[in-house]
Amino acid sequence: MAFDLETSRRTFLKAVGGAVLISAPAAPQLVVPEPPGRKLGWAIVGLGRLAINQILPAFAKCEKSRVTALVSGDPDKAGKLAARYGVDPKNIYNYANYDSVRENPAVDVIYIALPNGMHAEYTIRGARAGKHILSEKPMANTPRDCEEMIDASRKAGRKLMVAYRVRYEPFNQAMIKLAGSRDLGAIKVIVSDHGFNIGDPAQWRLKKDLAGGGSLMDIGIYALQATRYITGEEPVEVNAMQYSTPGDPRFKEVEETVNFQLRYPSGVLAQCTSSYGYSGQNRYRVVTERGWFELEPATSYTNLKMRVGRAGSIEERTMPQIDHFAAEMDHFSDCIMNAKEPLTPGQEGLRDLRIMMAIYEAARSGRTVRLS
Amino acid sequence: MAFDLETSRRTFLKAVGGAVLISAPAAPQLVVPEPPGRKLGWAIVGLGRLAINQILPAFAKCEKSRVTALVSGDPDKAGKLAARYGVDPKNIYNYANYDSVRENPAVDVIYIALPNGMHAEYTIRGARAGKHILSEKPMANTPRDCEEMIDASRKAGRKLMVAYRVRYEPFNQAMIKLAGSRDLGAIKVIVSDHGFNIGDPAQWRLKKDLAGGGSLMDIGIYALQATRYITGEEPVEVNAMQYSTPGDPRFKEVEETVNFQLRYPSGVLAQCTSSYGYSGQNRYRVVTERGWFELEPATSYTNLKMRVGRAGSIEERTMPQIDHFAAEMDHFSDCIMNAKEPLTPGQEGLRDLRIMMAIYEAARSGRTVRLS
Repeated sequence: MAFDLETSRRTFLKAVGGAVLISAPAAPQLVVPEPPGRKLGWAIVGLGRLAINQILPAFAKCEKSRVTALVSGDPDKAGKLAARYGVDPKNIYNYANYDSVRENPAVDVIYIALPNGMHAEYTIRGARAGKHILSEKPMANTPRDCEEMIDASRKAGRKLMVAYRVRYEPFNQAMIKLAGSRDLGAIKVIVSDHGFNIGDPAQWRLKKDLAGGGSLMDIGIYALQATRYITGEEPVEVNAMQYSTPGDPRFKEVEETVNFQLRYPSGVLAQCTSSYGYSGQNRYRVVTERGWFELEPATSYTNLKMRVGRAGSIEERTMPQIDHFAAEMDHFSDCIMNAKEPLTPGQEGLRDLRIMMAIYEAARSGRTVRLS
Repeated sequence: MAFDLETSRRTFLKAVGGAVLISAPAAPQLVVPEPPGRKLGWAIVGLGRLAINQILPAFAKCEKSRVTALVSGDPDKAGKLAARYGVDPKNIYNYANYDSVRENPAVDVIYIALPNGMHAEYTIRGARAGKHILSEKPMANTPRDCEEMIDASRKAGRKLMVAYRVRYEPFNQAMIKLAGSRDLGAIKVIVSDHGFNIGDPAQWRLKKDLAGGGSLMDIGIYALQATRYITGEEPVEVNAMQYSTPGDPRFKEVEETVNFQLRYPSGVLAQCTSSYGYSGQNRYRVVTERGWFELEPATSYTNLKMRVGRAGSIEERTMPQIDHFAAEMDHFSDCIMNAKEPLTPGQEGLRDLRIMMAIYEAARSGRTVRLS
């Protein structure tokens, strides 16, 4: 699937009563797509909500990736999903016989969609089984785990990528392009807010050993990532403040809210919020010498919106709304087939983990933490 | 001037092509306003841009305040403005004979519209001359100066108010009311951004002795104020990061950008940005358990906009757009005539100064500063 990255623009009309007339489009012609080229076979490890609602349906939109195996502790669930997605029942694995995927030539790539605390083990076992690995974010619970994952993949001669989904979709790509163009001058400040009201206190995201931490590890990482990919730099200093509502059963083990400040070498300062305590915060704004540009929503699965402000006017930019998961999986398949380095390799996940550990340390110590 | 604080609401229609039909209003009847009641006489000290463009024109919309005297180092400018605004030429003072305003019964109140570093001296001299004082924000360069201003006014038996303009206009009042109602649940996080691209490097706002500091003293104070009046609490901890572009002639003496984090006793965390280095940032968003509400612009002189988000919908609320300066001056005249304490007395200015000093200290030291 090729999509046009050129942006279409329309002035953001705020006036009430302003009428927009659009001529009726010609009846669309039926375009029969070309048959796909070669597709790599993917195994999905961990059949939770993400796999069921996002990853498995996304294969229908892939050009270079198809699902060929499932790994789950629940054979009934795996069987049903295999039937729905045309996976050969002999390619269903459990966590005990997972390593025998080594003998299965139908599997080229493994997508680790398990709780964060299990990414390291299943990545390392998968790499040792000779497979390329796409790990969900955050890459692991600790920088040490990330290093071991990188090491295992390197030793196996296989690729490792972290599933930073929004790096593969047009809105965030347009933000990066606009930032890099310096059209609106040098970047000065980035403000990024991510928060959702988390539900069931029993879920794995609220368990320290499975999640590694609270909102920061899950969604604060989007705020952090945005400041890194927009600047193209690595932060050198971090401040943070943390809060969890006393007595809230959801936040016994992990934090509710952690807000942080970052300093980048060029002088860019970033302000980020991350919370499990309230809904619907999902945005970032880049403020430059001569204007600003923002996404809100910025990192949700669909319906991203981009606005650009300059010289007193605000303009909305539209971009193709694509399936982020299909785009990231096809990117990795393409890298594997064509011996290219993925845009978000293991090193990228490791960098975020190091910064997130510094954020927690800053919140704990009440001091600016310097990153080397 | 009475105005209706009831908000009118209209659903924020995002769909293009949605049509809104409004029935034609009846021809308005000519309403002859009642003659005004008693008005207090005001002297304006410092005839700069604020006095000329905002304060003096605002008297036309006042019910309880009229301009009766001018204080300036420039007799020609003062004479022209006196002629335009009907001020008796004998009520024009300069900085040398300012104290003789004591003998002038036409002056009840003095509005200090001088550079920040001069607020203390002219407030103290005005109070000693037996006049009530409205000082522009920030109240002074230091908490010590604020204390001396409060002391002088108390000893003189006169009132002292700080010109926190937006406390007297309907949009910010509606935000405070909505915050207090807990309609959307407890407040969790407040994000506030204020920035404008400052011009002429020679202006007083960029001189340390006249301005006390940079963007924080001038506009960061709006961000800080918003977090205080929305929570109704005093912050207990602050973190900060500061940046000034090396070599920029505007930032030789004062800071360009200072971003800060605040912790409130109830657990509310705030994230604020303040900068002289880019344009058009003027907003705050209050995020609560069940939604959010925001102003953007939040503190500009006109055209404020309020939005409320809950359960996936966004609603715009309209409010009367009034003259903020007329409202604040009439509030103070009313307090004086009716022996009431102003909403933003000297103590309120002092609190902000103490917090701003803590912000600078946090930025300098790289440590969380605790406020008592």
